[in-house]
Amino acid sequence: MIRISLDVMGGDFGPEVVIPGAAKALDRHPDVTFILYGQQERCLPILAQYPKLQAKSVFHHCEVSVGMDEKPSQALRRGRYISSMWRSIEAVKTGQADVVVSAGNTGALMAMAKFCLRTMATIERPAIAAIWPTLSGESIVLDVGATIGADAQQLLDFALMGGAMARALFEIERPLVGLLNVGVEEIKGQEEVKEAGRLIREAGLDTIDYFGFVEGDDLGKGTVDVVVTEGFTGNIALKTAEGTARQIAEYLRAAMSRTLVAKLGYLLAKGAFDRLRDKMDPRKVNGGVFLGLNGIVIKSHGGTDAEGFAAAIDVGYDMARNGLTQKNRKRI
Amino acid sequence: MIRISLDVMGGDFGPEVVIPGAAKALDRHPDVTFILYGQQERCLPILAQYPKLQAKSVFHHCEVSVGMDEKPSQALRRGRYISSMWRSIEAVKTGQADVVVSAGNTGALMAMAKFCLRTMATIERPAIAAIWPTLSGESIVLDVGATIGADAQQLLDFALMGGAMARALFEIERPLVGLLNVGVEEIKGQEEVKEAGRLIREAGLDTIDYFGFVEGDDLGKGTVDVVVTEGFTGNIALKTAEGTARQIAEYLRAAMSRTLVAKLGYLLAKGAFDRLRDKMDPRKVNGGVFLGLNGIVIKSHGGTDAEGFAAAIDVGYDMARNGLTQKNRKRI
Repeated sequence: MIRISLDVMGGDFGPEVVIPGAAKALDRHPDVTFILYGQQERCLPILAQYPKLQAKSVFHHCEVSVGMDEKPSQALRRGRYISSMWRSIEAVKTGQADVVVSAGNTGALMAMAKFCLRTMATIERPAIAAIWPTLSGESIVLDVGATIGADAQQLLDFALMGGAMARALFEIERPLVGLLNVGVEEIKGQEEVKEAGRLIREAGLDTIDYFGFVEGDDLGKGTVDVVVTEGFTGNIALKTAEGTARQIAEYLRAAMSRTLVAKLGYLLAKGAFDRLRDKMDPRKVNGGVFLGLNGIVIKSHGGTDAEGFAAAIDVGYDMARNGLTQKNRKRI
Repeated sequence: MIRISLDVMGGDFGPEVVIPGAAKALDRHPDVTFILYGQQERCLPILAQYPKLQAKSVFHHCEVSVGMDEKPSQALRRGRYISSMWRSIEAVKTGQADVVVSAGNTGALMAMAKFCLRTMATIERPAIAAIWPTLSGESIVLDVGATIGADAQQLLDFALMGGAMARALFEIERPLVGLLNVGVEEIKGQEEVKEAGRLIREAGLDTIDYFGFVEGDDLGKGTVDVVVTEGFTGNIALKTAEGTARQIAEYLRAAMSRTLVAKLGYLLAKGAFDRLRDKMDPRKVNGGVFLGLNGIVIKSHGGTDAEGFAAAIDVGYDMARNGLTQKNRKRI
């Protein structure tokens, strides 16, 4: 049995998305139970529409919820100990839940998760890992925005944490890990990336295979299982890829609706387009994972729908089932 | 009349691509003359196949050419004063040419361009600017890899140089300029980006409009005319976008060839697909531009074909015609 705690008030739509999302995830994983945290006036009427989910859930009323635009410091001041976000995280700390999923604002969630769960003993800083669709399947990219800048030791930590996540999610014994870099020779700076390469090589790790440097275009190719970078570059790479995918989808839509013959062609090829849309669907890989904390925290996109939130729960389910935290503790 | 000097030996294919590319560009711009630098044994037989181009060109034999894998320091040692790369740049310095185009290796080209042309008096560091296709047309993104890291003053320089390039290429009087950043509040680091924002605001510039911060997904949207960032992040964003575009093209190809009906649909919609391919064609926006030097240097992709090289010449032509260097000198 996997026990998942949910911040029902998180995200742009709160219970309207989180509860139907949980119901979908329950259909796929009947061995899940939920602990729900939220305002009962908003949550219980919706929960009542999903009797199967209700039967597998325990609900806790929380008066306070964290706003999507609240600054982390403000959220901590106002919502510590009492908000649905805090209490859903705390359930992992007390061992009542195996994993927590929230679509709430990233900064506040990270601040509360750090404060409540604490960083693992051997890890300097937590990271946010994204699951990146590639031509050869999926890769893990971290950090995509937990902190800005990272020294060589922190990049080494990211390599180990990303490796542990790849083992849990993709079931690869020794994931292939690359460091994101630029291909230009003899330019100054980014000494920490070069230094991290040396550290990883010299550590002689048996939990990962170190590939070396990768470049931006290796992300989509899926050259390695885990791509390591600091949070500023990682966040910009992630959003650039999302933006490019949307841009091309828009070009495609415009091209296909331009002439009658193109429209007819589109109708005939609709099955193929649906497969493509499915491949490109950002909801499919919804769920950033906070790594390096004493507990698993999954961040869903704030603007996602029930299908996307269910996908974030799926990620949490897989990670909890494969005992990521335990493995991380043991192997790092 | 615009006078363009070409490093005929640059790129993966050298004269086989550069000479046909120049011939194509000449068809589009009959007011161009060329100064060609290369090994005559390889160049002259090809040039002889393009009599129109030959009539508008002066050819100079150079025994030495810079290899695509040569390190900048090595290229400088071996090729300074004598290589086709150096001499094509020198033609801009001596005023014989308005602009130089090379498909040679980026590091060597930048090293030679800096050494030969020197950085402009008020500019600390040159930058490489890319022309980025967007949903609303094209934007300029810099730096995409000239140097790694940039302080606030250098980012301000990039804003001014990118603004001048947007004026020359897009003919916008006051280009809208944004600073690339991440959207997470209250995280440490990247103080230089925040500081650059303050500097630009306080400078009260009348040559650009300052938009504020943009994120990775604003690149494809075309939120601003000019996106400013340091070279590490810029290079990774550029390659990530290129990689994502190739990834989606591959998904599309696979989806369309999967069933007979999809193939039929593809045939009907072929015109639309061709338009899409045209939009996504990286050759169309081929040409990184070195900014901040006393002369215009255009870097074409090393692996491009004649059409792509002609597009790089087009960029050089537009920039020279709009007197970018002069404007830059006056306005910065």
